[in-house]
Parts: sequence; structure tokens; C-alpha cells
Amino acid sequence: MVRSVAIVGAGSSGLCAIKCCLEEGLEPTCFERALCFGKKRLHVGEAGRISVYRSVITNTSKEMMCFSDFPFPEDYPNYMTHARLLEYFRLYADNFDLLRHIRFQTTVRSVRKQPDFSTTGQWTVVTETGGRTESAIFDAVLVCSGHYAEPHLPLESFPGIETRFQGQYLHSWEYKDPARFRGKRVLVLGVGNSGGDIAVEISRVAAQVFLSTRSGTWVISRISDHGFPLDMMLTTRFHACLEGLFPSAIMGRLKLKKFNTWFDHANYGLIPQKSPILSLIVNDELPSCILCGAVVVKPDVEAFTESAAIFEDGTMEENIDVVVFATGYTFSFPFLEESVRDACRSKYTLYKAVFPPPLEKPTLAVLGLIELTGSIMAGTELQARWATSVFKGLNPLPPAGQLVAEVAKKQQLLKSRGLAHKESKIKMSYLGYMDEIASCVGVKPNVLLLFLTDPKLAWEVFFGPCTPCQYRLTGRGQWAGARNTILTQWHRALKPLRTRVV
Amino acid sequence: MVRSVAIVGAGSSGLCAIKCCLEEGLEPTCFERALCFGKKRLHVGEAGRISVYRSVITNTSKEMMCFSDFPFPEDYPNYMTHARLLEYFRLYADNFDLLRHIRFQTTVRSVRKQPDFSTTGQWTVVTETGGRTESAIFDAVLVCSGHYAEPHLPLESFPGIETRFQGQYLHSWEYKDPARFRGKRVLVLGVGNSGGDIAVEISRVAAQVFLSTRSGTWVISRISDHGFPLDMMLTTRFHACLEGLFPSAIMGRLKLKKFNTWFDHANYGLIPQKSPILSLIVNDELPSCILCGAVVVKPDVEAFTESAAIFEDGTMEENIDVVVFATGYTFSFPFLEESVRDACRSKYTLYKAVFPPPLEKPTLAVLGLIELTGSIMAGTELQARWATSVFKGLNPLPPAGQLVAEVAKKQQLLKSRGLAHKESKIKMSYLGYMDEIASCVGVKPNVLLLFLTDPKLAWEVFFGPCTPCQYRLTGRGQWAGARNTILTQWHRALKPLRTRVV
Repeated sequence: MVRSVAIVGAGSSGLCAIKCCLEEGLEPTCFERALCFGKKRLHVGEAGRISVYRSVITNTSKEMMCFSDFPFPEDYPNYMTHARLLEYFRLYADNFDLLRHIRFQTTVRSVRKQPDFSTTGQWTVVTETGGRTESAIFDAVLVCSGHYAEPHLPLESFPGIETRFQGQYLHSWEYKDPARFRGKRVLVLGVGNSGGDIAVEISRVAAQVFLSTRSGTWVISRISDHGFPLDMMLTTRFHACLEGLFPSAIMGRLKLKKFNTWFDHANYGLIPQKSPILSLIVNDELPSCILCGAVVVKPDVEAFTESAAIFEDGTMEENIDVVVFATGYTFSFPFLEESVRDACRSKYTLYKAVFPPPLEKPTLAVLGLIELTGSIMAGTELQARWATSVFKGLNPLPPAGQLVAEVAKKQQLLKSRGLAHKESKIKMSYLGYMDEIASCVGVKPNVLLLFLTDPKLAWEVFFGPCTPCQYRLTGRGQWAGARNTILTQWHRALKPLRTRVV
Repeated sequence: MVRSVAIVGAGSSGLCAIKCCLEEGLEPTCFERALCFGKKRLHVGEAGRISVYRSVITNTSKEMMCFSDFPFPEDYPNYMTHARLLEYFRLYADNFDLLRHIRFQTTVRSVRKQPDFSTTGQWTVVTETGGRTESAIFDAVLVCSGHYAEPHLPLESFPGIETRFQGQYLHSWEYKDPARFRGKRVLVLGVGNSGGDIAVEISRVAAQVFLSTRSGTWVISRISDHGFPLDMMLTTRFHACLEGLFPSAIMGRLKLKKFNTWFDHANYGLIPQKSPILSLIVNDELPSCILCGAVVVKPDVEAFTESAAIFEDGTMEENIDVVVFATGYTFSFPFLEESVRDACRSKYTLYKAVFPPPLEKPTLAVLGLIELTGSIMAGTELQARWATSVFKGLNPLPPAGQLVAEVAKKQQLLKSRGLAHKESKIKMSYLGYMDEIASCVGVKPNVLLLFLTDPKLAWEVFFGPCTPCQYRLTGRGQWAGARNTILTQWHRALKPLRTRVV
């Protein structure tokens, strides 16, 4: 029987992991290398630490990204700065009294199976606090250390960057604010969410920003119909049904048409190359920066000279002062023993992106190692509810052999679609994944039944945004406030906006 | 016969005034108080000088705002910074060799009728250069001194701002960049183009920005269908025809519906009060700043306390550090003699917004004192062409009595619509005004005829954007490059955008 649980990391997934443990009567101990809660994210990059730029704004709206039984205060804006989000985490931690379960300034050095693991499922966790090493045995482990800590810096793909180029280069992980780029000619490599944000921000002070992308991307705005957040309008069960009804070719074409209504992506040089993966970023300002010439889109860089970048199309931009690699992150769990680490290579090597399949006992789970078409925080919280219910023995997993087989099948599927090497870029459907995990936990709402018993609520659940609250309507962890939270979601979205009424 | 022309001010209207004089064989002398061309606009505010914030971006696209026979270089962005626009003015000045007609560091102190004005139409112009006063007689005067030099600071409308409020306040005219607002709580008063821009820019460094507006405004984006500039898509003869065909009530309703497609202005607190005047600003970022909570819209301020602003709806915002008055400008022509100055009170007291009607001789014209629904630069250039052709005697004006009567009639019309006190805010229809002045000059294109003689060109002239080039197709000042410039306008719009082709 699991009692004690080690939680590695006290980010948003660590926090809700603590709460889920407490609710299941487990005893969580959360290890966090930072000095205090939230601080780590404000530090300038230090190896292995998460680091964000000062101006970063959430790209999921407050109704969609909240913890399922703790909606954002109604006066919070729909999208928010990092500082505001931290405030919310503090409210959450205080409300459920989570901080006392965190051991700060403590780094997890190793997580190893106990010799009798196959019967007990226990782990030895070695931690380090201020140079002092400690070891303890836990019945289970939740890995919540995130996957944005290790910058991916593919210098080898850019001939000349190390040998000839005389300017500076840095990874977006080191980027904090645009001050040092004033008056400079800057080349940003990669047009993911960070690349787009950083290009826009630097362009306000730089002499010129070039934004280089091999594969292109669709750019969508946070603002949707009537000014409501995009994800509130699109992430609905109704939309998912439609997608299920029509052939994917037709739906795909409709989607691309929709993406092009804001502006024609070919006209702005951003049109994605034909690829089975839909690349998509959220950015409200990039298109106007391009239209105003502050950001110039370029194809992939072929090589660097002393001061210039030569692009695939043969064009060249001279006098580049700084190159910013917005080339994303890799991740690893160096503290895990090799066999486990290998099974945690990616979300596709994990059973439902949570459990490493070859374990004899399901007493270790990885939270938050997902890319969804919606809120990762919401997905992570549901994972935590599932994992703790599995630890608790409430929702036993299928036998290990079946887990391994299922993972192998998914891998095969990816390979057959030619996506094996791109798996980190594939986003899973938010609604599909949420419902899948919710079924495992036994908290998936039965919408049909709801239409009979509570049609008003059912209407919102089906046609309205599929908020995390929907998974608190029924089953274990049911929350009395869920119904009202769902029925007042549009009110909370408007509250911080309608601040002048005529 | 007019030969010598004094031009007051060497801004964009002064420049094209010089060129028009030269083309009519007149002898222009342009007086400019700044040290050299373009510099004045980069200086921090000095009384009576135009001053712009560093980040300002044109809100008319390059194809619509260019001088009619001098399109922007094709690699220029569609909208551009102030620095880029100055570059263009320099190209224009160099190309037509205009700078040698400008006397820099020279302030016009007075413009007075000669005693024999009623027969000669001549003016005595007194100027000052480095403390030395000079006087000269000119056959005609073009007033090109602009109308953005005198900040309108309505302190009397905000009880407490001078007596109780302990924070700072300034006019947007003094605003250069957001540095001093870092971490501050800032209240911006007025949501014109400047108010919107400044609120957005400050919000990136401030703790919080409040944007107060009594009357609200429609916010439109520079980006239109397919990503083309909005004014290129909307300012067409085809649209103008449609507007003429349908009742204005229907067109008005369609317009408001169109304005609300980006976001619902009521939801964002920006919805304009019912008013006969359409208030409208161009801003690509304000809506997302509101959605992200960086800018909070508020109603009009009722009063200030020591540190707080109390709003009309009874709400209060505490700890306001700085108040920015984005309350616009007034203008005056202190150098003109009183009778003339009085006739230059507004565009509606001038005959077709150019000639002061009570003059015995039409030898003084005011350029650029207009608000159009499109490019003011384009309108000003056409005014300059008209004024110089009038000076030259090619297009004589109706008798003075008729001018006076026509102006009186317009004033009466404004009064009957209850708009007399708001006249400075009324924008005239770009296309209507351009065609009206072009008819006076004799350069209005005959589209029907064009469909017979050059259908390809006619198609673009009718369905495409009504660019200034259209007034160079025929008549005096006809330009051989006009046809090709019109036929290649979409190419020039795309050129700086399609910098990556898949």
C-alpha cells in the first residue's frame, strides 16, 4: 500500500500533485531546488533551471488553464503575465495549505528502485540540501520537474556560426528583456511561441529584426469572436463532435481557411511547409510587426559569414549583431535510473503519457510531459489525480505486458506516418486526452445523461468551453462548486474587460 | 501676376508646396524654424513645435500616403516608423532638389497684407533668423505650419488635478518613450490615436495602465483581408459607389457590424457613445493589451484626490503615479494678421479647407488643415497643386462673395446637426474631398471614359485603392509613370512581406 510519495519539483504540476496526494490520504514530500516558491522562474538562466522572459504572457485563457476546483479570481485578466500567474499559484498553495509539504533548496540527485521493488514498489530517493546528502525511502514517486529546462542549441546545423561569425549568439533561454538589443540588427532563429514573442519584443528597440524559419507556422490570435479568448470559443465538445463527423481532409481544409482569415500566411512569408504536423503559435502582434517592417521573415539559414547570414533562397543579410536561437528545449531526468529514464524518453514511450510501462509496480509517474492543443496545466492536474488514484489502488493499471504492447503499438503508428523523429512536436488533442484520462479516473462527465437531468448545465458543457471544471462534476473528487463555476464562466471572462459601460 | 511665394514650414506639406511652386514656374522661399530638415520632429517638445513619440508608426499605408508622382521604394514596409518616413521625405527632397529653397533656423514672425493688397494681393513677411529680423514682400503665401504643435491640456475639466493630486501629469506631446513609466501606475486620458499608442507602449513596462475615455472609440487594425493594408482594401471608388447607392442608415449599420468583427467593443469597454461623429482609431495591439489586462479601460474621470482618480461610474483607482493627457492639439497661426487668422479658425471657415474666403485676392492658402478618412499627405499635396494653380491664374476662384456664402452655408449645416462645437473632430471623406479638389485643378480621372480606352487600368482605378497616383493620369501635372504605378501597386505592397516563399 502506498503512503509516502516523493514529488520532484514544485512547479504548477508539483503543486497540484501535493494537493492530490493529500486528498487521497497520501503523505507527499515535495523537493524543490529553488529558494522559495515561484522564485526559480524569475532567475536569469542557470543550467537545468526553467527560465522565462519577463514579458511572457499565458497563451491559454484563465477559464481553460485554472486548476479544476480553483477558478481564477473573477477580476483576473483572461490572459496574464507570469507575475500574475505566480500570484494565482500562491493563492492555490495557501488555500490548500501546500507549502509546508515542500522542502526548498533541495535537489533530487537520484531515484532508484529498492532491491525488493518487485514486491514493495518502493524507491530510494537521494537528495541534497546545501551540500548535505540525504536518502529516504518512498512508496511512490511523482516526477514534476518539467521539460523546459535544457536549451536545445543546434549549432551544428548552422555552418560558420562557431567558426566565422563575429557577432554574438544566445539561446532564448538566456533572454530576459530587450534592453541589450537596442539599435542592433538581430536574427531570431525559429518561430515557435518563444521565437515569435522575442522577435516582436526586440523589434521595438532593435534597428531591424529578421525571423528565420525553415518550416513556417500558422499564427493565431488570443482574440476570437466577440473578443472572447480563442480557446474558450474553440475548445468545445460541440467542435470535437463536428471534427468527428466530417472527413479529416475537409476539416483540415476548413481549419487552414480559418487560419488564413486574419491574414494570408503566404503573403507574410509564414506559410508552413507541407507537413503532417500542424505547427501553430499564439501571437497577437507578429503580423502587424511584419506589416510595419519591424520584423522581416526569412527562410532557413544556410551559413554564417563573419557578419552576415546567408539564407536558403540565396539572399543575404549583412551586419547581423546578434543571433537568438529560439530553437526550443530538450529534457531529461538525470536522477532516474537508466532503465526508467529510457522509458521516460518522451510522452509516447509512457503509457498514456504518464506511466513508464516496464515497471513491475506502477509507483512512478511522470506529470506534465505532454503537448496538448489546450491547457497543459489542466492535463497535468488530471494526470496527478489519476496517478494518485493508481497509487492508492483505486484504479489499477492493466498488467505491465499490456502497457508495453500498447506503447509499442503507438510507436509503430508514429513510424508508419513518418513522424517518429518529430514526436516531441506532435500535440495531442486536448479534449481527447482529457476525456481519456478522465475515463481512467472515473470522472468523465456523461453529457447525454446530463441533458436529461440538468439541461442548462449540459448545454454549457456541450456547447461551451471544455474547462477543467467539467471533470469535477461527478465521480471521485467531485466538487460542489463545479456546476456554478461552469455556468458563470462567461461572466468571469467579461468581468475584467467590461470596465466601462455605456 | 504671382511670382514669389513664401512658404511657412518645411514639413511634408511645405516640401510638396515647394515642388508645386517650382512646377508652376513660381519662386518659392520656404521658412523653417528647425536646424535642418526633419530634425524638428525628433526633438523633445519645445513650445510650438511638433513633437512625436519615438515609436509612432504611420496609420496610412505607403501606397495611399505617397506623393502622387513619387511612390515609396518597393522594399519599404507598408506602414513605417517615423525615421523611415523621414528617409522618404529626404529622397523626395533630393529627387526634386527642394532643400535649396528652404531657409532653416528661420521663424516667420508676421504675415501682413501690403497696403495695396486689394490690387496687388501682396504680403509683407517678417522673419527672424538667430535674433536678426528681416522683412520681404511676397506675391503669395502658403501656410504649411501644421496643426499639431499646441497641446490641448484641459486641466479645468478635471477637478483636483491641479489642487489635490500629488502625482505627476504631462501632455502626450511631451511623451517620447516609456522608460520613465517603469513599474508605475499610469492613467492615460483620451483614446485618440496617440492615447491608444501611448497606453499600449507604457503598458509593457508599467505596473498598470488605465485608459480613460468619455466617448469611446472604434478600434481598427492596419491588417485587412489577406493581410493587405486596411486602407488599400477600403478606400476604393467601388466602395464609395456602394455607399452612395444604399441609404446611409443601412451603410452605417453595416459599418458598425464590420467594426465589431475583430472584437465586440462593448465587451472591451470601448463602445462609442451615440454621437453623430464616428470616432475611430488605428491600433493593432490595444485589444490584446485589454484582453491581457495590461490596459484597463475606464470611463471619464470625475475628480482627482491626492493619489486616486474617481471615475464617472463611481469606481476609483488608487495610487496613480502619472496622468498622461492624450487630449489632442489645438492650433493657431499667430503670425497671421487678425482678420485672416480669424478666417483660418478651422477647415470649415476656409473655402474648401484651403482659402480664407474674405480676401480680396486669393493669394494666401492654408495647406494640411484637414482631417480626412484617408491620407492627409495626399490631400495636402492636391491642395498645394490647386493653390499654386490658383496663384498662377489657371483656375480662378469664384468671386469673394460666393466664397463667403458657401462657407457660411457649411457652418449653418454643421450648426443644424449640432456639430458646430465639434467641427475639429469631423473627418471629411477622403475620396469625396480628393475628387472635389481634383475637379478644381482639372485632374480628376474620368473612370467611365477610362473603361472604354484602358479597361485594365480602369478596373484598378475603380475597384482598387484610390491612390494619389490616380490624380496624375490626366490634366495639368500628368505623370507618365502613373499608369504603371497603379498597375503595380499590389506588387509593391507584397514586396516587403513575401520575404520567404515556400
